[in-house]
Order: sequence, then structure tokens, then C-alpha cells
Amino acid sequence: MSQASATIKASTNNWVWGADATRPRFLHTMIRVRDFDASLRFYVDGLGMKVLDRFDIEARRVTAFFIGFGGYEDGGCLELTHLWDVDAYTHGTGYGHIAIGVPDLPGALAKLEAMGVEVTQRPVKYFADAPHLAFVKDPDGYSVELIQTRKG
Amino acid sequence: MSQASATIKASTNNWVWGADATRPRFLHTMIRVRDFDASLRFYVDGLGMKVLDRFDIEARRVTAFFIGFGGYEDGGCLELTHLWDVDAYTHGTGYGHIAIGVPDLPGALAKLEAMGVEVTQRPVKYFADAPHLAFVKDPDGYSVELIQTRKG
Repeated sequence: MSQASATIKASTNNWVWGADATRPRFLHTMIRVRDFDASLRFYVDGLGMKVLDRFDIEARRVTAFFIGFGGYEDGGCLELTHLWDVDAYTHGTGYGHIAIGVPDLPGALAKLEAMGVEVTQRPVKYFADAPHLAFVKDPDGYSVELIQTRKG
Repeated sequence: MSQASATIKASTNNWVWGADATRPRFLHTMIRVRDFDASLRFYVDGLGMKVLDRFDIEARRVTAFFIGFGGYEDGGCLELTHLWDVDAYTHGTGYGHIAIGVPDLPGALAKLEAMGVEVTQRPVKYFADAPHLAFVKDPDGYSVELIQTRKG
């Protein structure tokens, strides 16, 4: 069991997104996952996200985790949704990936690989002054781009 | 032509994400789109995002727009990718949606509907103290959740 899933507590901080309510902003991206334990091992133990909230909605037979690097106010959270009665999902050709900036791309990849994560694109630069980027697969096969944020 | 696409200029601010490089953070979500003009009408004219950057990569026959409500530092940008040789994409069952917080949900929906946008879920509350939320479809059929951020 991942560190994260072992310490989850449900909460109902529904209104944290009421902060900075005067302008529109990006809140989260939702993907459906099969196995929270595998997902949290990847995103929390592997990438360093924190669990912000968990919702179990009996009536809709769905559980959702909100995870992110900061709080809801920082923008760009991830919502992991698990439908209790569905254990397989398909990937279309439209949706691409989420991108996460990491200070140390080689270090991040080494850590993920040691956990058994598949690297689908080794670090590459697309422009002379661009950051290095790489791609990995999360446990459900979603692409996750990792971009080196620390220069040099 | 949308206001946005009429005023695009290419730039190469590849290193704006070098800010706050000491901790990992969420950068963007990428979706593939067929028609930038339709996408920018929806996300820029309709929802109020701004175009941050545009990349035309001849060698890979791809163009990408980065759009967001703030700058790259605010987290949660959207990357719209158009493959020059592909004009149709499929939606799997795994990827869900992006969520955007808006101060005035009824106003945002009215504006989008006046533009011909399909509303797939009228405003609803899932919990007693939860914010109202609604769902619309973007021009490529991606679900976009709109969450009321201003309380009351």
C-alpha cells in the first residue's frame, strides 16, 4: 500500500476554491483510474503530490481523490475518479497528457523507474533554449510529461 | 475569426516555467484539437483565457497554443495541439474533463450558450455546501466543467 493511501482521511473542504473568486481560473483535470493505490503510488509517492481531499459518493457509486502539489488555490490539481462498477477504460486519440514541472528531471525519472514506471520518451529538447522534457506512463496508461524547470 | 486568433503572434518564452523551479508543480493539460479558430473562440472569447504562446514545429507538422488565465507561473494552462495531417480524434472513456472556476456560473453559461455552446449539465450541487457546477462541451467534444467560485 502506498504511503498516501494508508493515511487518507475523508474531508469536505468544498469551499477552498472560493478563494480568489473574482476571476476565472483553471482548477483541475479529471482522469478515471482503476486502482487508487497504484495511482497514489505514482502521483504521490513517485511525483510528490499531496492528497487534498477525498469524496465517496455512494449514490453515484464513485470515489474521487483531489491531489496536487499545493492547495486548490495553486491551480492545476488532478482529480482521480474511480467508478466502483467499472474496471477498464479506453484511451482515445484526442486527449494528450498532463505536464508536471520538476526541478531535477533525471532524478525524477530515476526515482520513477526504480518504482517500475515506464519511460516512453527519454529527456529531449525540442528547441535550442527549451527545457528538457520526458514522458512517462501512469498506472492507467495516461501520458505524463515531465519538464525540467531548473535551468542548466 | 475569433478575437484571439486574429491577434496571435508567435513567441518563444520557453523559459517562463523556470520561475519557482525549486519545487514540482502542475504545468498544463494537453488536448488535441481540429480547428484552432473554433477552440480559441471557445476558450479565449468564451471563457476568458489568454493566448500565452504559439509554437509551429514544421519538422513534426504540429502547431501548439498555450493558453491560460494568468501566465505559466499561475499553473494550470491548457495546451491545444493541432496535428497538421489529422482532422479527427476519438474520445476514450478514461479521460474526463478540465474544470474551470468562474465567479458567475449562470453568466458564464449564458454567454457560452449565446455562442452556440452545448450545455450537457445544468448547474447542480452535489453536496449541501458544495459550489454549483455545470458541464459544457468544447468544439472538439471535450467536457469542460464550470464551477462557481463566488459563494452565495
